[in-house]
Amino acid sequence: MPLYFITGNKNKVDEAKAILGEVEQLDIDLPEIQDIDANNIIEAKILESFKYKDGGFFIEDTSLCLDCLNGLPGPLIKWFLKAIGNQGLADLAEKSGNYKAEAKTVIGYAKSKREIYFFEGSIKGKIIAPQGEANFGWDPIFRPDGFDKSFAEMSREEKNNISMRRLALEKLNNFLKNPAK
Amino acid sequence: MPLYFITGNKNKVDEAKAILGEVEQLDIDLPEIQDIDANNIIEAKILESFKYKDGGFFIEDTSLCLDCLNGLPGPLIKWFLKAIGNQGLADLAEKSGNYKAEAKTVIGYAKSKREIYFFEGSIKGKIIAPQGEANFGWDPIFRPDGFDKSFAEMSREEKNNISMRRLALEKLNNFLKNPAK
Repeated sequence: MPLYFITGNKNKVDEAKAILGEVEQLDIDLPEIQDIDANNIIEAKILESFKYKDGGFFIEDTSLCLDCLNGLPGPLIKWFLKAIGNQGLADLAEKSGNYKAEAKTVIGYAKSKREIYFFEGSIKGKIIAPQGEANFGWDPIFRPDGFDKSFAEMSREEKNNISMRRLALEKLNNFLKNPAK
Repeated sequence: MPLYFITGNKNKVDEAKAILGEVEQLDIDLPEIQDIDANNIIEAKILESFKYKDGGFFIEDTSLCLDCLNGLPGPLIKWFLKAIGNQGLADLAEKSGNYKAEAKTVIGYAKSKREIYFFEGSIKGKIIAPQGEANFGWDPIFRPDGFDKSFAEMSREEKNNISMRRLALEKLNNFLKNPAK
Protein backbone atom coordinates (compact mmCIF):
# COMPACT_ATOMS: atom_id res chain seq x y z
CA MET A 1 0.00 0.00 0.00
CA PRO A 2 1.45 3.40 -0.88
CA LEU A 3 2.03 5.94 1.86
CA TYR A 4 0.03 9.13 1.32
CA PHE A 5 1.04 12.60 2.49
CA ILE A 6 -2.01 14.84 2.75
CA THR A 7 -0.80 18.31 1.85
CA GLY A 8 -1.22 20.95 -0.81
CA ASN A 9 2.52 21.66 -0.78
CA LYS A 10 4.56 19.86 -3.43
CA ASN A 11 7.87 20.96 -1.84
CA LYS A 12 6.95 19.20 1.38
CA VAL A 13 6.20 16.04 -0.59
CA ASP A 14 9.65 16.15 -2.20
CA GLU A 15 11.23 16.63 1.22
CA ALA A 16 9.30 13.64 2.58
CA LYS A 17 10.28 11.49 -0.41
CA ALA A 18 13.97 12.20 0.23
CA ILE A 19 13.61 10.66 3.68
CA LEU A 20 10.79 8.12 3.41
CA GLY A 21 11.23 6.87 -0.15
CA GLU A 22 7.99 6.44 -2.06
CA VAL A 23 5.30 8.91 -0.96
CA GLU A 24 2.15 9.89 -2.83
CA GLN A 25 0.70 13.36 -2.48
CA LEU A 26 -2.99 13.55 -1.62
CA ASP A 27 -4.16 17.11 -2.11
CA ILE A 28 -7.50 17.39 -0.34
CA ASP A 29 -8.75 20.51 1.33
CA LEU A 30 -9.31 19.82 5.03
CA PRO A 31 -10.83 22.26 7.51
CA GLU A 32 -8.33 23.45 10.08
CA ILE A 33 -9.77 23.85 13.56
CA GLN A 34 -8.76 26.58 15.98
CA ASP A 35 -6.33 25.39 18.61
CA ILE A 36 -2.88 26.15 19.93
CA ASP A 37 -2.13 22.44 20.31
CA ALA A 38 -1.00 21.12 16.92
CA ASN A 39 -1.92 17.56 17.89
CA ASN A 40 -5.57 18.56 18.23
CA ILE A 41 -5.54 20.27 14.84
CA ILE A 42 -3.98 17.24 13.18
CA GLU A 43 -6.28 14.82 14.93
CA ALA A 44 -9.33 16.70 13.61
CA LYS A 45 -7.84 16.61 10.11
CA ILE A 46 -7.14 12.88 10.37
CA LEU A 47 -10.73 12.17 11.43
CA GLU A 48 -11.91 14.18 8.43
CA SER A 49 -9.46 12.35 6.15
CA PHE A 50 -11.04 8.99 6.94
CA LYS A 51 -13.82 10.12 4.59
CA TYR A 52 -11.25 9.68 1.81
CA LYS A 53 -8.87 6.96 3.08
CA ASP A 54 -9.06 4.28 5.75
CA GLY A 55 -5.43 4.78 6.71
CA GLY A 56 -1.91 4.73 5.36
CA PHE A 57 -1.55 8.51 5.34
CA PHE A 58 0.07 11.29 7.31
CA ILE A 59 -0.48 15.00 7.86
CA GLU A 60 1.90 17.59 9.23
CA ASP A 61 1.58 20.91 10.97
CA THR A 62 4.44 23.31 11.55
CA SER A 63 4.41 25.88 14.34
CA LEU A 64 6.51 28.85 15.27
CA CYS A 65 6.45 29.42 19.02
CA LEU A 66 7.73 32.69 20.48
CA ASP A 67 8.92 32.60 24.06
CA CYS A 68 7.85 36.23 24.57
CA LEU A 69 4.27 35.24 23.67
CA ASN A 70 4.31 32.09 25.80
CA GLY A 71 4.24 29.87 22.74
CA LEU A 72 2.06 31.92 20.39
CA PRO A 73 1.56 31.98 17.48
CA GLY A 74 2.18 28.22 17.45
CA PRO A 75 0.00 26.62 14.76
CA LEU A 76 -1.77 29.98 14.31
CA ILE A 77 1.36 31.38 12.65
CA LYS A 78 -0.25 31.91 9.26
CA TRP A 79 -2.76 34.38 10.69
CA PHE A 80 0.00 36.32 12.41
CA LEU A 81 1.88 36.50 9.11
CA LYS A 82 -1.27 37.68 7.38
CA ALA A 83 -2.00 40.36 9.98
CA ILE A 84 1.42 41.68 11.00
CA GLY A 85 3.96 39.92 8.77
CA ASN A 86 7.51 38.90 9.58
CA GLN A 87 8.44 42.46 10.51
CA GLY A 88 5.56 42.62 13.01
CA LEU A 89 6.65 39.35 14.63
CA ALA A 90 10.27 40.53 14.82
CA ASP A 91 9.07 43.79 16.39
CA LEU A 92 7.17 41.88 19.09
CA ALA A 93 10.29 39.93 20.02
CA GLU A 94 12.42 43.07 19.99
CA LYS A 95 10.00 45.06 22.16
CA SER A 96 9.87 42.23 24.68
CA GLY A 97 13.66 41.83 24.72
CA ASN A 98 13.16 38.05 24.52
CA TYR A 99 14.16 36.59 21.16
CA LYS A 100 13.90 32.90 22.01
CA ALA A 101 11.74 30.79 19.72
CA GLU A 102 11.06 27.20 18.78
CA ALA A 103 10.11 25.80 15.39
CA LYS A 104 8.11 22.62 15.65
CA THR A 105 6.67 20.10 13.23
CA VAL A 106 4.11 17.55 14.33
CA ILE A 107 3.28 14.64 12.06
CA GLY A 108 0.15 12.59 12.58
CA TYR A 109 0.29 9.18 10.93
CA ALA A 110 -2.88 7.14 10.58
CA LYS A 111 -1.91 3.54 10.03
CA SER A 112 -5.58 2.64 10.28
CA LYS A 113 -8.69 4.08 11.92
CA ARG A 114 -7.63 2.51 15.21
CA GLU A 115 -3.94 3.34 15.04
CA ILE A 116 -2.87 6.95 14.98
CA TYR A 117 0.69 7.96 15.90
CA PHE A 118 2.29 11.36 16.43
CA PHE A 119 5.91 12.31 15.77
CA GLU A 120 7.45 15.63 16.68
CA GLY A 121 10.57 17.44 15.58
CA SER A 122 11.65 20.76 17.01
CA ILE A 123 14.61 23.09 16.92
CA LYS A 124 15.37 26.12 18.99
CA GLY A 125 16.45 29.45 17.64
CA LYS A 126 16.10 33.21 17.78
CA ILE A 127 13.73 35.67 16.20
CA ILE A 128 15.71 38.21 14.19
CA ALA A 129 14.92 41.15 11.89
CA PRO A 130 13.93 39.69 8.49
CA GLN A 131 16.97 38.50 6.51
CA GLY A 132 17.20 36.54 3.27
CA GLU A 133 14.83 35.71 0.46
CA ALA A 134 14.96 31.91 0.10
CA ASN A 135 12.35 29.41 1.20
CA PHE A 136 9.04 30.76 2.53
CA GLY A 137 6.75 31.93 5.33
CA TRP A 138 8.59 32.98 8.47
CA ASP A 139 11.98 31.66 7.32
CA PRO A 140 13.48 35.21 7.16
CA ILE A 141 12.99 35.80 10.92
CA PHE A 142 14.05 32.40 12.33
CA ARG A 143 17.75 31.79 12.98
CA PRO A 144 18.34 28.31 14.35
CA ASP A 145 20.73 28.11 17.29
CA GLY A 146 24.27 27.23 16.19
CA PHE A 147 23.93 28.99 12.83
CA ASP A 148 24.72 32.53 11.81
CA LYS A 149 21.97 32.91 9.26
CA SER A 150 18.20 32.70 8.98
CA PHE A 151 16.35 29.85 7.28
CA ALA A 152 15.77 32.27 4.38
CA GLU A 153 19.52 32.76 3.96
CA MET A 154 20.06 29.01 3.56
CA SER A 155 19.61 26.98 0.40
CA ARG A 156 16.61 24.67 0.42
CA GLU A 157 18.95 21.67 0.94
CA GLU A 158 20.77 23.34 3.78
CA LYS A 159 17.52 24.15 5.53
CA ASN A 160 15.98 20.74 4.91
CA ASN A 161 19.05 19.05 6.39
CA ILE A 162 18.54 20.63 9.78
CA SER A 163 14.85 21.43 9.87
CA MET A 164 12.22 20.53 12.44
CA ARG A 165 10.34 18.83 9.60
CA ARG A 166 13.28 16.53 8.87
CA LEU A 167 13.46 15.52 12.52
CA ALA A 168 9.77 14.63 12.57
CA LEU A 169 10.00 12.80 9.22
CA GLU A 170 12.96 10.78 10.47
CA LYS A 171 10.98 9.69 13.52
CA LEU A 172 8.15 8.61 11.23
CA ASN A 173 10.64 6.82 8.99
CA ASN A 174 12.18 5.01 11.94
CA PHE A 175 8.72 3.95 13.09
CA LEU A 176 7.72 2.70 9.63
CA LYS A 177 10.92 0.64 9.35
CA ASN A 178 10.65 -0.76 12.88
CA PRO A 179 6.92 -1.13 13.47
CA ALA A 180 7.45 -3.65 16.27
CA LYS A 181 9.01 -1.04 18.60
CA MET B 1 -41.15 28.34 14.27
CA PRO B 2 -38.96 29.23 17.25
CA LEU B 3 -35.72 31.10 16.71
CA TYR B 4 -32.68 29.11 17.86
CA PHE B 5 -29.43 30.57 19.16
CA ILE B 6 -26.61 28.07 18.78
CA THR B 7 -24.29 28.67 21.71
CA GLY B 8 -23.05 26.97 24.84
CA ASN B 9 -23.36 30.23 26.78
CA LYS B 10 -26.57 30.65 28.77
CA ASN B 11 -25.78 34.31 29.55
CA LYS B 12 -25.68 35.14 25.86
CA VAL B 13 -29.08 33.49 25.43
CA ASP B 14 -30.53 35.67 28.20
CA GLU B 15 -29.05 38.75 26.55
CA ALA B 16 -30.57 37.74 23.21
CA LYS B 17 -33.97 37.12 24.79
CA ALA B 18 -34.00 40.62 26.26
CA ILE B 19 -33.77 42.03 22.76
CA LEU B 20 -35.37 39.45 20.48
CA GLY B 21 -38.10 38.03 22.70
CA GLU B 22 -38.49 34.28 22.50
CA VAL B 23 -35.19 32.52 21.74
CA GLU B 24 -34.36 28.86 22.26
CA GLN B 25 -30.84 27.78 23.13
CA LEU B 26 -29.37 25.03 20.96
CA ASP B 27 -26.21 23.77 22.61
CA ILE B 28 -24.36 21.77 19.98
CA ASP B 29 -20.63 21.54 19.75
CA LEU B 30 -19.48 22.93 16.39
CA PRO B 31 -15.91 22.86 15.10
CA GLU B 32 -14.39 26.31 14.84
CA ILE B 33 -12.17 26.80 11.82
CA GLN B 34 -9.02 28.90 11.81
CA ASP B 35 -9.51 32.31 10.30
CA ILE B 36 -9.17 35.96 11.19
CA ASP B 37 -12.40 36.79 9.38
CA ALA B 38 -15.30 36.08 11.74
CA ASN B 39 -17.74 35.76 8.83
CA ASN B 40 -15.79 32.78 7.49
CA ILE B 41 -15.78 31.09 10.90
CA ILE B 42 -19.52 31.62 11.31
CA GLU B 43 -20.29 30.51 7.78
CA ALA B 44 -18.46 27.21 8.38
CA LYS B 45 -20.43 26.74 11.60
CA ILE B 46 -23.72 27.47 9.85
CA LEU B 47 -22.97 24.90 7.14
CA GLU B 48 -22.22 22.38 9.90
CA SER B 49 -25.42 23.34 11.74
CA PHE B 50 -27.58 22.37 8.78
CA LYS B 51 -26.90 18.78 9.89
CA TYR B 52 -29.14 19.62 12.86
CA LYS B 53 -31.54 22.30 11.59
CA ASP B 54 -32.66 23.47 8.17
CA GLY B 55 -32.73 27.08 9.28
CA GLY B 56 -34.26 29.45 11.79
CA PHE B 57 -31.08 29.77 13.86
CA PHE B 58 -28.24 32.16 14.48
CA ILE B 59 -24.65 31.97 15.69
CA GLU B 60 -22.41 34.72 17.00
CA ASP B 61 -18.70 35.31 17.21
CA THR B 62 -17.09 38.07 19.23
CA SER B 63 -13.65 39.45 18.42
CA LEU B 64 -11.21 41.73 20.12
CA CYS B 65 -9.07 43.56 17.56
CA LEU B 66 -5.94 45.41 18.67
CA ASP B 67 -4.77 48.23 16.47
CA CYS B 68 -1.13 47.57 17.43
CA LEU B 69 -1.47 44.02 16.07
CA ASN B 70 -3.28 45.14 12.91
CA GLY B 71 -6.52 43.52 14.05
CA LEU B 72 -5.22 40.47 15.89
CA PRO B 73 -6.29 38.57 17.88
CA GLY B 74 -9.73 39.08 16.29
CA PRO B 75 -11.72 35.85 16.55
CA LEU B 76 -8.56 34.10 17.81
CA ILE B 77 -8.86 35.97 21.12
CA LYS B 78 -9.47 32.87 23.22
CA TRP B 79 -6.07 31.42 22.30
CA PHE B 80 -4.34 34.68 23.17
CA LEU B 81 -6.09 34.65 26.55
CA LYS B 82 -5.03 31.04 27.07
CA ALA B 83 -1.40 31.73 26.15
CA ILE B 84 -0.67 35.21 27.53
CA GLY B 85 -3.80 36.28 29.43
CA ASN B 86 -5.22 39.75 29.84
CA GLN B 87 -1.97 41.02 31.33
CA GLY B 88 -0.03 39.79 28.30
CA LEU B 89 -2.43 41.53 25.92
CA ALA B 90 -2.25 44.76 27.94
CA ASP B 91 1.57 44.53 27.86
CA LEU B 92 1.56 44.23 24.07
CA ALA B 93 -0.51 47.39 23.75
CA GLU B 94 1.64 49.22 26.27
CA LYS B 95 4.92 48.24 24.59
CA SER B 96 3.59 49.38 21.23
CA GLY B 97 2.32 52.68 22.65
CA ASN B 98 -0.92 52.13 20.69
CA TYR B 99 -3.89 51.32 22.90
CA LYS B 100 -6.65 51.51 20.29
CA ALA B 101 -8.92 48.48 20.01
CA GLU B 102 -12.26 47.43 18.64
CA ALA B 103 -14.70 44.90 20.06
CA LYS B 104 -16.84 43.30 17.40
CA THR B 105 -19.72 40.85 17.33
CA VAL B 106 -20.80 39.19 14.12
CA ILE B 107 -24.09 37.32 14.00
CA GLY B 108 -24.84 34.87 11.23
CA TYR B 109 -28.55 34.16 10.82
CA ALA B 110 -29.67 31.23 8.67
CA LYS B 111 -33.27 31.80 7.69
CA SER B 112 -32.99 28.76 5.45
CA LYS B 113 -30.27 26.90 3.59
CA ARG B 114 -30.46 29.45 0.82
CA GLU B 115 -30.75 32.55 2.96
CA ILE B 116 -27.91 33.47 5.30
CA TYR B 117 -27.55 37.00 6.67
CA PHE B 118 -24.79 38.67 8.65
CA PHE B 119 -25.16 41.45 11.20
CA GLU B 120 -22.27 43.25 12.85
CA GLY B 121 -21.97 45.39 15.93
CA SER B 122 -18.75 47.04 16.99
CA ILE B 123 -17.52 49.55 19.51
CA LYS B 124 -14.19 51.25 19.80
CA GLY B 125 -12.16 51.50 22.95
CA LYS B 126 -8.76 51.30 24.58
CA ILE B 127 -6.71 48.44 25.96
CA ILE B 128 -5.89 49.14 29.60
CA ALA B 129 -4.14 47.33 32.44
CA PRO B 130 -6.63 44.76 33.83
CA GLN B 131 -9.29 46.39 36.04
CA GLY B 132 -12.44 44.95 37.58
CA GLU B 133 -13.79 41.50 38.25
CA ALA B 134 -17.27 41.44 36.67
CA ASN B 135 -18.31 39.73 33.47
CA PHE B 136 -15.73 37.52 31.71
CA GLY B 137 -12.92 36.95 29.21
CA TRP B 138 -11.09 40.11 28.18
CA ASP B 139 -13.60 42.47 29.85
CA PRO B 140 -10.97 43.70 32.39
CA ILE B 141 -8.72 45.16 29.65
CA PHE B 142 -11.30 46.78 27.37
CA ARG B 143 -12.48 50.30 28.18
CA PRO B 144 -15.07 51.49 25.66
CA ASP B 145 -14.55 55.03 24.40
CA GLY B 146 -16.69 57.53 26.31
CA PHE B 147 -16.54 55.57 29.57
CA ASP B 148 -14.12 55.75 32.44
CA LYS B 149 -14.20 52.07 33.35
CA SER B 150 -13.55 48.69 31.81
CA PHE B 151 -16.29 46.23 30.87
CA ALA B 152 -15.30 44.28 33.99
CA GLU B 153 -16.01 47.31 36.20
CA MET B 154 -19.55 47.57 34.83
CA SER B 155 -22.57 45.58 35.99
CA ARG B 156 -23.80 43.02 33.51
CA GLU B 157 -26.75 45.29 32.66
CA GLU B 158 -24.54 48.31 32.15
CA LYS B 159 -22.26 46.37 29.82
CA ASN B 160 -25.10 44.72 27.92
CA ASN B 161 -26.70 48.12 27.29
CA ILE B 162 -23.72 49.39 25.34
CA SER B 163 -22.07 46.23 24.06
CA MET B 164 -21.07 45.24 20.55
CA ARG B 165 -23.30 42.19 21.00
CA ARG B 166 -26.36 44.37 21.67
CA LEU B 167 -25.69 46.36 18.51
CA ALA B 168 -25.51 43.19 16.43
CA LEU B 169 -28.60 41.71 18.12
CA GLU B 170 -30.55 44.90 17.45
CA LYS B 171 -29.68 44.71 13.77
CA LEU B 172 -30.89 41.12 13.71
CA ASN B 173 -34.05 42.14 15.57
CA ASN B 174 -34.72 44.95 13.13
CA PHE B 175 -34.27 42.54 10.24
CA LEU B 176 -36.60 39.94 11.75
CA LYS B 177 -39.30 42.57 12.32
CA ASN B 178 -38.92 44.08 8.85
CA PRO B 179 -38.06 41.15 6.63
CA ALA B 180 -39.19 42.98 3.49
CA LYS B 181 -36.31 45.48 3.70
